[in-house]
Amino acid sequence: MIDTILNHRSIRKYTSEKISKETLEEILNAGMRASTTGNMQVYSVVVTEDDDNKAQLAPCHFNQPMIKNAPVVLTFCADYNRFNKWCELSNAKPGYDNFLSFVTGAIDALLAAQNVCVAAESKGLGICYLGTTIYTADKIIEVLKLPKGVVPVTTVTIGYPDESPELADRLPLEGIVHYEEYKDYSDEDIKDLYQEKEQLPENIGFVKENGKESLAQVFTDVRYKKQDNVAFSKVLLDVLKSQGFMNHED
Amino acid sequence: MIDTILNHRSIRKYTSEKISKETLEEILNAGMRASTTGNMQVYSVVVTEDDDNKAQLAPCHFNQPMIKNAPVVLTFCADYNRFNKWCELSNAKPGYDNFLSFVTGAIDALLAAQNVCVAAESKGLGICYLGTTIYTADKIIEVLKLPKGVVPVTTVTIGYPDESPELADRLPLEGIVHYEEYKDYSDEDIKDLYQEKEQLPENIGFVKENGKESLAQVFTDVRYKKQDNVAFSKVLLDVLKSQGFMNHED
Repeated sequence: MIDTILNHRSIRKYTSEKISKETLEEILNAGMRASTTGNMQVYSVVVTEDDDNKAQLAPCHFNQPMIKNAPVVLTFCADYNRFNKWCELSNAKPGYDNFLSFVTGAIDALLAAQNVCVAAESKGLGICYLGTTIYTADKIIEVLKLPKGVVPVTTVTIGYPDESPELADRLPLEGIVHYEEYKDYSDEDIKDLYQEKEQLPENIGFVKENGKESLAQVFTDVRYKKQDNVAFSKVLLDVLKSQGFMNHED
Repeated sequence: MIDTILNHRSIRKYTSEKISKETLEEILNAGMRASTTGNMQVYSVVVTEDDDNKAQLAPCHFNQPMIKNAPVVLTFCADYNRFNKWCELSNAKPGYDNFLSFVTGAIDALLAAQNVCVAAESKGLGICYLGTTIYTADKIIEVLKLPKGVVPVTTVTIGYPDESPELADRLPLEGIVHYEEYKDYSDEDIKDLYQEKEQLPENIGFVKENGKESLAQVFTDVRYKKQDNVAFSKVLLDVLKSQGFMNHED
């Protein structure tokens, strides 16, 4: 069990083997067992297996090849639409058109997503998360026909692995964990924590290829740039508004 | 592996048995193996074991008894503080003072949290998520001394189980999963999906105790009320502002 978790690699190349309906339902069912706020289950999962639909989703994920190559693409969404409908049918007045409710639904969706991934890996499948979901939520909403109250928060591609990458590097545990209170980092702490990452041949290669001075510059100037982050932030906040989660702002 | 996931129950009563340092580090390490956006690891975990610190956290979680009874309380936070410091030390200009970056950090934190929970359960531990974290993030920031760039998103209490509750009810799988596109629910669909939940003796009891007409009213009028949700939304958005994630709004 812990071994499955410890052996996780993001898998970006898949064999042509399909995932059986039985296996897919088994891992989706594992997702449903994750904790959810007040057992409201305010999330939904959209399964994409059809090639035409994958082709429509692909640009939403900057045409990363996993979308078309994976047999199954799962889009995890915060979803108050279903819960609100139930309330209205039950003569109850839902008060979930606000930011807190979006975050609540996003938490439900993400815990379920990680359960699905661990379950999938325990069955020999490989997974990859696509962070692009929150950059292009507006377009994904159109493709998947998500109604008001529903916002996509992450996407996972799943299939049988056709590659066996090395384990990804991670910061030392003490870089992530604080005991009793947050101990802020000195310059020395930061240097120690990131030293191993900076010295990986792969990362030295990235710095060189991109003509940068440091690995951090590859992140700030190439991969996750301020201007993109600001533009995506505005799109995402507009999506929250148009999907009905910011009604306290008026 | 899947069995651990399928057998998940939220555990709210714990024995007095401590969690060894070795076991705690093993499950935290399992958390670190979760996928993270661009391998940036933009999250932190604060471990609370000290009784005085638990007493300070308790009101942030509406004095739910798990905080004081569990040997370990873990607060998972979106964290760009560490990454930003690394960027600045590396002559790179971080552009992560925006809403997208908060959501990115929250996703990292939540996937790690769920890995920790599954790993803990596989070792015979019991866990409970506390949704209150996002209601009182401002107060938790004070107690845990979280600097700018850090926002708590969820809390998990962990310990050896001193109860064995029934498996929680869940909607049928077809209530959560959509194939190819979102199929919106008819009134009949909603009635079918929620019928089992409404008829559980426990839930019939809740409706009666609270003097309500329907289970949904227990949610809307008692447990998750609009006025609270709106108030907590404003606090959370203010926290995002004060922790430096809304700088594109000016």
